[in-house]
Amino acid sequence: MNSNLEQSTARVAAAGKAARVASKRLALLSRAEKDAALGVLADAIEAAEASIVVGNGRDLERGRDAGISDSLADRLRMTPERVSAVAQALRDLAALPDPVGEVVRGNTLANGLQIKQVRVPMGVVGMVYEARPNVTVDAAGLGLKSGNAMILRGGSAAADTNAAIVAALRESLERQGLPADAVQLLDGGHEDVQALITARGLVDLVIPRGGAKLIETVVTGSTVPVIETGTGNVHVYVDADADLDMALEIAVNSKTHRPSVCNAAESLLVHRDVADEFLPRVLRTLADKDVTLHADERATALAGDVETKPVTDEAWNTEFHDLEMSVGVVDSLDEAIEHIDGYSTHHTDCIVTENRAAARAFIAQVDSAVVMVNASTRFTDGGEFGFGAEIGISTQKLHARGPMALAELTTTKWVVDGDGQIR
Amino acid sequence: MNSNLEQSTARVAAAGKAARVASKRLALLSRAEKDAALGVLADAIEAAEASIVVGNGRDLERGRDAGISDSLADRLRMTPERVSAVAQALRDLAALPDPVGEVVRGNTLANGLQIKQVRVPMGVVGMVYEARPNVTVDAAGLGLKSGNAMILRGGSAAADTNAAIVAALRESLERQGLPADAVQLLDGGHEDVQALITARGLVDLVIPRGGAKLIETVVTGSTVPVIETGTGNVHVYVDADADLDMALEIAVNSKTHRPSVCNAAESLLVHRDVADEFLPRVLRTLADKDVTLHADERATALAGDVETKPVTDEAWNTEFHDLEMSVGVVDSLDEAIEHIDGYSTHHTDCIVTENRAAARAFIAQVDSAVVMVNASTRFTDGGEFGFGAEIGISTQKLHARGPMALAELTTTKWVVDGDGQIR
Repeated sequence: MNSNLEQSTARVAAAGKAARVASKRLALLSRAEKDAALGVLADAIEAAEASIVVGNGRDLERGRDAGISDSLADRLRMTPERVSAVAQALRDLAALPDPVGEVVRGNTLANGLQIKQVRVPMGVVGMVYEARPNVTVDAAGLGLKSGNAMILRGGSAAADTNAAIVAALRESLERQGLPADAVQLLDGGHEDVQALITARGLVDLVIPRGGAKLIETVVTGSTVPVIETGTGNVHVYVDADADLDMALEIAVNSKTHRPSVCNAAESLLVHRDVADEFLPRVLRTLADKDVTLHADERATALAGDVETKPVTDEAWNTEFHDLEMSVGVVDSLDEAIEHIDGYSTHHTDCIVTENRAAARAFIAQVDSAVVMVNASTRFTDGGEFGFGAEIGISTQKLHARGPMALAELTTTKWVVDGDGQIR
Repeated sequence: MNSNLEQSTARVAAAGKAARVASKRLALLSRAEKDAALGVLADAIEAAEASIVVGNGRDLERGRDAGISDSLADRLRMTPERVSAVAQALRDLAALPDPVGEVVRGNTLANGLQIKQVRVPMGVVGMVYEARPNVTVDAAGLGLKSGNAMILRGGSAAADTNAAIVAALRESLERQGLPADAVQLLDGGHEDVQALITARGLVDLVIPRGGAKLIETVVTGSTVPVIETGTGNVHVYVDADADLDMALEIAVNSKTHRPSVCNAAESLLVHRDVADEFLPRVLRTLADKDVTLHADERATALAGDVETKPVTDEAWNTEFHDLEMSVGVVDSLDEAIEHIDGYSTHHTDCIVTENRAAARAFIAQVDSAVVMVNASTRFTDGGEFGFGAEIGISTQKLHARGPMALAELTTTKWVVDGDGQIR
């Protein structure tokens, strides 16, 4: 073990122990206490606006010197308006039901034992994410509402912003008589991530949120439970029986509404029976919206004067996260399902069809977190689903699948109530 | 990579691909088809009784030569009666509800999108377990009923028994027109386990079931999602306000009813206010049942002529899985909770009390999969809970906690049904 990793391991161990102590307090808070605290935290974030914006300025300056992209700088930027928005998000959390204490199921056994499965906090949750300071506030708020102590590891590009935010949150918690260690920030090097994801017994769950590489690092390197989030190679399939006007709107909206996010579509598959009519229209519309098109031979033949590149296997496997899309023609619904099975990251996949049997087959056979019929893939989102919040979108099958919010940050406990039963 | 591991990796990759293909068929089977298949598999197991018993004889002989313990030999042994019992367990599974297709939650959004979260099979599930051939049949049955393809890795001590069982199951599946690869057995060396737990993308979940060492190996070495099961350092705490006759029965039953299993109690804590009256009785009764007692100073002082050993930190941390127990006196409910927090494996912990406030505090503060009031810890069991089956008892917080059965072998999928919604 190199000395940096040793230091990180010690730092994470100390943070984990402090978080465990804090989590015991949090687990016993009533909903009223947690909701009141969220309101005070929101005020504290607004009161700290100046220090957050100043810290953010230093991060942005370092970023400029390092030549970060405009889109990265935009994600990193905290204006006074954005500070207000994240504070408001904390207030909005107070309006959501408390997942803790919910009875999931229960019954009375033949012997009179009353058993019930009750939601309880996870305990200590680690989050590893990139340079998006709003995630820092969201994670702290979701953690408090669900009764979990959070150990946060944001991207180093946002170090000063995150430090200002977490300082404001911790100070406010302390002033409220709540444990400051409910929210902790790891600000060491990459070794902190390594130490966090191997802190067995100290951390109950780690959620990585970011690009594919970050997620791969966390998932393969961790010895603590992890929820994989976010990578989305999302497909829209236009069936032989699609309403083609609807299909055009869905394909274009799924691709262009916000191309940088994980629920944006990356691939378009079109049934051969409607290819002649549909492809010239959709390719023209996408091209007019500056979408770079990777097309297979049959799609290229129908592209008219729209410029396309030959689609490669690599393109089919790429999450462009940009105005760029792979397009191809399939001979059948089965071929579409098989293609999706081979290339999808099992985040969200959509069929556009008026045919009941085709919709049923697609729903049954496409093995993704969210399977859609006749809707934009952009609806895979905790806010859109009505969860009121989102901590990420799980693309794994264990524990949580699809948009995750408060309930997904809890586990359950069985409570068995007897009057002397023995076996 | 050594050549054994290379071979195992290739073998697991082939098994995983075949399992994936099989899982697609299984996911589309109706409940009626699965229940009928379970009945035919039960018949096939009974028809293969002779070959199973012969294979088991070879395993037992090898075991004897290797000097395995009587209790291990007993777990390994397959008599004709035990073959009938495992076949019957398959028939019993047919009577249970199908978890697949259950709508967990759902609603219609403001924009008219109808969303629902539906249970679907995990896909491909790996199981790593020790020399208990009944687990082979149970896992195959639970897998089929929940629509999952199973890759089984039983203990090498049961190799011939498992081979006979799996051959019978696969032949029966094939004769029924179902995919034989729904049940596969890995019979290579330890490298097969290593290959299985790192088969990312091929295996959706691995469940280790066995001793602490096996589970540690799987959990720390895996890069696929894992559910930790089974280790149980289980406590019974007798409160100041306990009904002491009830406490005696619960303590004795929890320890002695079946000491080799994970829900048997290993530690007894007694509040000082009732120690004088309760400890002499319970220590005498336990000693009469041949329980070896590790007692702290205050318990030893109350042991009378019952022989005790001084309890050590190691004893408090030990799952004896035998007629052996650690016993101590605590000054308060808080001290009991703190002790349990320090030593419990968070499987099952029990309070015996007539005091409502003490029960509420214990339930709220003891962070275990099952928390009991006034009942034997032996009730932590899928069968006792009314699940009709059990694939293990999860001691982790992610996905499943406590006894796991059919529902815990499923994941969910969000189905979004629209009529052209875009953002």
